[in-house]
Amino acid sequence: MTNTKDHPTALPARVRTVVVGAGYAGLSAALSLHDDGIDTVILEGSERVGGRVCSERRSHGVVVDHGGQWVGPTQKHLLALAERFDCPTFPTYNTGEHIELWPDGVQRRYTGAGPDDGPGMPEYLAAADRIDELARTIDLDDPTATPDIEKWDSETVHSYFERTVANEDARRRLALAVQGVWSIEPRDLSLFHLLFYVASAGGFNQLMETEGCAQERRFRDGAQSTALAVAHHLGDRVHLNTAVRHIERTTDGVRIETSRGTILADTVVMALPPSATQRVTFAPPLPVSRTRWVERSPMGDVAKVHAVFDTPFWRADGLSGQATIYGARAVGVVFDNSPEDAGHGVLVCFVYGDRQRSWSALSDDDRRAAIIDTLVELFGDRAASPVDYTEKIWPQDRWARGGYAASPTPGTWFAHGHDGWRAPADRIHWAGSETASIWNGYIDGAISSGSRAAEEIRKQLSR
Amino acid sequence: MTNTKDHPTALPARVRTVVVGAGYAGLSAALSLHDDGIDTVILEGSERVGGRVCSERRSHGVVVDHGGQWVGPTQKHLLALAERFDCPTFPTYNTGEHIELWPDGVQRRYTGAGPDDGPGMPEYLAAADRIDELARTIDLDDPTATPDIEKWDSETVHSYFERTVANEDARRRLALAVQGVWSIEPRDLSLFHLLFYVASAGGFNQLMETEGCAQERRFRDGAQSTALAVAHHLGDRVHLNTAVRHIERTTDGVRIETSRGTILADTVVMALPPSATQRVTFAPPLPVSRTRWVERSPMGDVAKVHAVFDTPFWRADGLSGQATIYGARAVGVVFDNSPEDAGHGVLVCFVYGDRQRSWSALSDDDRRAAIIDTLVELFGDRAASPVDYTEKIWPQDRWARGGYAASPTPGTWFAHGHDGWRAPADRIHWAGSETASIWNGYIDGAISSGSRAAEEIRKQLSR
Repeated sequence: MTNTKDHPTALPARVRTVVVGAGYAGLSAALSLHDDGIDTVILEGSERVGGRVCSERRSHGVVVDHGGQWVGPTQKHLLALAERFDCPTFPTYNTGEHIELWPDGVQRRYTGAGPDDGPGMPEYLAAADRIDELARTIDLDDPTATPDIEKWDSETVHSYFERTVANEDARRRLALAVQGVWSIEPRDLSLFHLLFYVASAGGFNQLMETEGCAQERRFRDGAQSTALAVAHHLGDRVHLNTAVRHIERTTDGVRIETSRGTILADTVVMALPPSATQRVTFAPPLPVSRTRWVERSPMGDVAKVHAVFDTPFWRADGLSGQATIYGARAVGVVFDNSPEDAGHGVLVCFVYGDRQRSWSALSDDDRRAAIIDTLVELFGDRAASPVDYTEKIWPQDRWARGGYAASPTPGTWFAHGHDGWRAPADRIHWAGSETASIWNGYIDGAISSGSRAAEEIRKQLSR
Repeated sequence: MTNTKDHPTALPARVRTVVVGAGYAGLSAALSLHDDGIDTVILEGSERVGGRVCSERRSHGVVVDHGGQWVGPTQKHLLALAERFDCPTFPTYNTGEHIELWPDGVQRRYTGAGPDDGPGMPEYLAAADRIDELARTIDLDDPTATPDIEKWDSETVHSYFERTVANEDARRRLALAVQGVWSIEPRDLSLFHLLFYVASAGGFNQLMETEGCAQERRFRDGAQSTALAVAHHLGDRVHLNTAVRHIERTTDGVRIETSRGTILADTVVMALPPSATQRVTFAPPLPVSRTRWVERSPMGDVAKVHAVFDTPFWRADGLSGQATIYGARAVGVVFDNSPEDAGHGVLVCFVYGDRQRSWSALSDDDRRAAIIDTLVELFGDRAASPVDYTEKIWPQDRWARGGYAASPTPGTWFAHGHDGWRAPADRIHWAGSETASIWNGYIDGAISSGSRAAEEIRKQLSR
């Protein structure tokens, strides 16, 4: 949802703090500074706030979330912000049986984490336990102080699974879990980053499950609603359509060149994902460790597809709408994304990694057919005729260039994590979900990263 | 060496082709187009041509090469260009015994690839043979057509060595070989990229050895001399201190915004390393595969340090000046970089990867002491008092941000190599050593990449 104005407010000549990026991290930083009476503006390149969280009210009145959408019970920063701005949540539909679909066409219905008789299930659960055990040794405040960081950051997750999980079906389950959580393939991911991320979320199940976990609740008016409310509260301090191009540190401040003119500030919060940070030039250049960190943290590849139906007809069949699809089909995971009142039925399909690349190269018709065919296979003929269908292919998003988050490549945490992860560079502070200790990569982590950057600035300004 | 002018030539309003970057790739592209009468300019951000090749005449008249410096007998593009512009070469000093120094202080003298009685030598040589065997299956024109690409691109070189080389000393030798060739650590490198690079050079020994191989000869006036001669030949078509910031494709051409104004062209050759390409914004954005390729190809970390002495005194001791240092010391490799007439003695020290990071964080005095101490340990007390000492820390170079080259991270070749490696994006063509099939990462590869891009443009313009 956009909040463009016809007559943009002129940029002020000078402020105390400029926040670059109006995703949840930037909004959180600006709100925190504003609450403390520190003169702050946000500069946002696109025509809306929310970043990788983007809700849209479609025809038939259904709100779909093209980006981040869930909130879990331990995501206290997001829950608190939503409560402050009166943005209600409701439980993700989680009643009935889930389905898993295998490459040979076999479907299994189950409840819980997976079918007890599913191929590779015991080995999958054992591997998840081992991951949790290793993740308990991660130091979340200074991940580079983790004892085994060098060993774990030297190996891809693919190699780790090959080495430690003998059962091929269990490896398939683990690969889909990686795609689902990081939207990249196990070959792209450092074992250390996987373990850090698991620790950051509070355990493997927190990432994977619904009830009591990351996927527990949704926002009645879409996950962007809180971002829009914060932006409304900040008013004219939020400048949209203002792309930051060049940042120069001078003897007494920072000079920020944008597509709409230049602004001076005492301090800057960069609240962009790493790949967007790279499209801003800095003089003097950023410290080498930060340059390398940013350069070595590419974005994941995910698309979300929503199909809207007159009713959530699968519920009457005893199905939750949740499905997990292994193998060649484009869709990896399906969830019931119907509105709280079930006035319509909505299925959201996630397309990740390798499958996202092949699928997004298809024609419009073929992409749609690939999605709908799988929904029919799972939920029957009534899935063939949605009343609305919409795709968001995040790698093609001009600003985010991917999603959900950036994952540092093997060796990056070990070599560049200590100084490059989030240490301020003089007057430049770093926010963004990728800089969070808790719920890194999630909306909650974005919000806490903004508060942390604001706290750094309060300390700096009071010196 | 710089070729700055006090009065820069004004940019033309419109040309047929703009080449971005005046390293060897850009110079080669522009020269090839100019030879064919195609109206071309080069825009270079820095104050000199040569890119990651940079020669300097020091006090005492000694020319040092801060960047790329060697030429081997199979590097036919570089040899031909040097011959065309009358830039003479001479053999790298390769007489006498090399030294290897181990963490326990033990030194071994040897000739050839390593001491026959050196720890781990047989296992090292066997591992090199296995690498050559695998590399023979690489398809250099379309690396993504290599049969085992998915498997090899899913593993770090660290994991591969752990899995296949039992002897720890052999793994140390292999790790130093990786640092020496890619200036990163085995944990950072995809096995597939290692194999591609070995194939691209014509075998493991081509990368490692001197006589008959990549380190065979040097340039009398420095490796930048040919670049300077090409720039002189192109004259006012080379615009220095002209940083390209934004490139917009329009219906009938390309609009290039620079720090010195805007220029229009029919086509563009981007002849920058991937990390520099990321600091240019494109509208419309580049194709996703190219964005990902660039985003996932970080630069290596290398520093070169030259110590100049009155004479190459080690030669009289029967030493070649070549040394290989394992373990905690900063220096990884030393070469005799004396001028052809041996009027002075010059030792060049290479500092790579992890060791480069710790060493470059030291004070000026401590950095110098770390280098000189190792030279004294290797070559005796006379090494304690150089008449000149100079460092080039490439990660701190404003333009290159590292060296020698960029290495795609695990999974990048497999997922994004086919479309992202060098396929033109409409009117935008890709040069740079990282896009070469032969001698990728070397000056020779840069030159052939420029000719290849020029050939693409000739075909495009003649349509």
